[in-house]
Amino acid sequence: MIAEIICVGTELLLGDIVNSNAQFLSRELAELGVTVLHQHVVGDNPARLRALVQEAKDRSDLLVFSGGLGPTADDLTKETVAEVFGDTLHFDAEEWAKIEAFFARTGRRPTANNRKQAMVPTRGRKLPNAHGTAPGAWFEDAQGRAAALLPGVPHEMKAMWTEDVRPILEARQNCTIHSMTLRVLGGESDIASRVAPLFESANPTAAIYCKTGESEIRVTARAANRAAAEAACRARIEEFRAILGDNAYDVDVPGLAYTVVRTLRERGLQAATAESCTGGLVAEQLTAVPGASEVFGTGFVTYAAAAKTRLLGVDPALIERCNVVSAPVAAAMARGALAASGADLSVALTGLAGPGGALPGKPVGTVYLAGGDARTGCVHVARLNLCGYGDRTIIRARAALQALDLLRRMALGLAPVNAVTLAPGQQAPEL
Amino acid sequence: MIAEIICVGTELLLGDIVNSNAQFLSRELAELGVTVLHQHVVGDNPARLRALVQEAKDRSDLLVFSGGLGPTADDLTKETVAEVFGDTLHFDAEEWAKIEAFFARTGRRPTANNRKQAMVPTRGRKLPNAHGTAPGAWFEDAQGRAAALLPGVPHEMKAMWTEDVRPILEARQNCTIHSMTLRVLGGESDIASRVAPLFESANPTAAIYCKTGESEIRVTARAANRAAAEAACRARIEEFRAILGDNAYDVDVPGLAYTVVRTLRERGLQAATAESCTGGLVAEQLTAVPGASEVFGTGFVTYAAAAKTRLLGVDPALIERCNVVSAPVAAAMARGALAASGADLSVALTGLAGPGGALPGKPVGTVYLAGGDARTGCVHVARLNLCGYGDRTIIRARAALQALDLLRRMALGLAPVNAVTLAPGQQAPEL
Repeated sequence: MIAEIICVGTELLLGDIVNSNAQFLSRELAELGVTVLHQHVVGDNPARLRALVQEAKDRSDLLVFSGGLGPTADDLTKETVAEVFGDTLHFDAEEWAKIEAFFARTGRRPTANNRKQAMVPTRGRKLPNAHGTAPGAWFEDAQGRAAALLPGVPHEMKAMWTEDVRPILEARQNCTIHSMTLRVLGGESDIASRVAPLFESANPTAAIYCKTGESEIRVTARAANRAAAEAACRARIEEFRAILGDNAYDVDVPGLAYTVVRTLRERGLQAATAESCTGGLVAEQLTAVPGASEVFGTGFVTYAAAAKTRLLGVDPALIERCNVVSAPVAAAMARGALAASGADLSVALTGLAGPGGALPGKPVGTVYLAGGDARTGCVHVARLNLCGYGDRTIIRARAALQALDLLRRMALGLAPVNAVTLAPGQQAPEL
Repeated sequence: MIAEIICVGTELLLGDIVNSNAQFLSRELAELGVTVLHQHVVGDNPARLRALVQEAKDRSDLLVFSGGLGPTADDLTKETVAEVFGDTLHFDAEEWAKIEAFFARTGRRPTANNRKQAMVPTRGRKLPNAHGTAPGAWFEDAQGRAAALLPGVPHEMKAMWTEDVRPILEARQNCTIHSMTLRVLGGESDIASRVAPLFESANPTAAIYCKTGESEIRVTARAANRAAAEAACRARIEEFRAILGDNAYDVDVPGLAYTVVRTLRERGLQAATAESCTGGLVAEQLTAVPGASEVFGTGFVTYAAAAKTRLLGVDPALIERCNVVSAPVAAAMARGALAASGADLSVALTGLAGPGGALPGKPVGTVYLAGGDARTGCVHVARLNLCGYGDRTIIRARAALQALDLLRRMALGLAPVNAVTLAPGQQAPEL
């Protein structure tokens, strides 16, 4: 099946918004095994729209539209597509009642213009809109060429796609699709080379998306039913995990902080943070997870050297002797955070996020990460070399990600990455 | 002048990436007074590309391409556009030397395929690429219809656009353009209604972009030269500021934290943070600004009630009596942060970010914000009602923005918004 995507909206042509709808629809169609050869953006001009729809219909089996379903007189997408597909529109009392009820809930009344939105295909079918006023539309000609008209508002569009359009296409493609996303610490090139054969499979497919310091591997299976598609995804994910090991940290979570909060909760552990160069980013990411209060109570942002001494009890002589950006100071911060918070685990960060401030032997991007474990009295300390990965924002983000990973590893009893482990009372070496 | 944008790339058709290039180019063209009626995405297929280029050239004065300039055999955009514009390509020794030098810097050698990238227009002209290997191309036919071919990598594309293509178009439009962005606290609908007449002007134009809790007003002036365009922008920005007052906080900055850091530095003030519901977000935003260490040394993330007592000295009886989410506790946190840090100014936040945890009379989204001022001993305290604006992420982001604004207002001596001001020692009322 060949499809094209047509997005209607002046705000796209003016560059006021980025076309995230085209990306969403393209990815969904690819996963269904539908080939997308063209994407277009046009305005609300009926002549230009008609020319484009006719041309697209001549070469493709399916046209997917987003936008142009609004109530104003120049929103003519539905009328134009109906004409090209040889269909007409009629007034639908049920949709009109829904529109009136929608307005009533917000204390308003629909205008005469809104009646346009209650016009639905005569030979085709309407697509209910669970999240807004305008129903979508499905048109189909005698040759089986079809058009799906969806709203432009992303959350309305996505809901209508998932609930109404994708099931039609799954039925036509004679399959059900299911996707799962495995999250893996490390860069795309590292990962891709180790699991290359798994990316060549046609079903399940796998695609890798590079994020800061980690990658997402999205596995999509097509099968006769949902259970079989899910099972195929899960089996493929296990193959990835077998190769990628501990770095593959979770499936279908928004990010590492979610995995850390869940792991801490499962193990009944409390964590604390002591941050210098990341300035609160680790605490912010942990507390962005609903329910974080069960596992996190205290964070210290000790940006100044004096704050490291005052809040965490770091010896000023140690700072003087080793420099504030050093392994011994990171270790002392981690120990101080445990003592000052009463938590079971701590992570501490001190480093050079730039742009200025490089030291001899310590370029911008040098970060010391320490993890304290009150259960054993041990402290793990590592030097992260994040130079060359990007600017201040990237350095901070990568350092925070490593800190979350250290918390995860301590909670699970996994070995920390490239870290020196200090016994209780032992001072850290220079790293 | 009528333009269309053609982006070439399979990764766009598969939905692997979002088409941010189309947005950038559309906005730039709009600012130049060029009308964009179509955007397209196509793959590297020469037949489909040729058909599209021919059609686009028949109806538009200017075609702007991004992508398709790579070294592989199926990157045929340059060859295809040359053919439609009646031009040919020839090998350019200077570009080839640049490509060889680029590879040498990274310890590699170009392959024979890369020679394709050194092919440049014969009648048209090459566009130098300051940031990558592939030069761009400018084609023009006898009727003055033109095509600009730019790389797909966004930073290479933007640099080539700004340095090479925009000056050509400014010359054709007989003008220079300049843009300035005013940042304003508050929602788009509030702001737009107050300054509506200023948006109707044709030159300078103004466009408003809604962000979380604030808006950007982008003013773009066209004039005969740069100085005149800048002066026209500045004058229009002053008109906006005159209407919008204190809420218009800065021009051409990445965000409010930059304004706060600069203001604190100018006034020689140190700030501290005490965060519960925002969990470190305010500290993280302040320390994201290079040079923040001059004005920020200490932040407390007191997510648990016990941490508020231990780190900030908040009386447990006060927490027990008033609830941890209350104006008196926020005020005590702000006072405690001043005492524990030695800073001049503090902000403190305690609230319900959700999704669960609503209290009688305090729905999710209720946040108490306090600001302490060591110079006067006064504390400002306000209740923020952020229910209905969105989820946990939005509530936290809006609360953090209000906290930064309170720091700004205290530093500048402006009145805080909707706040009660407490004298030294005075306890906060319930709000």
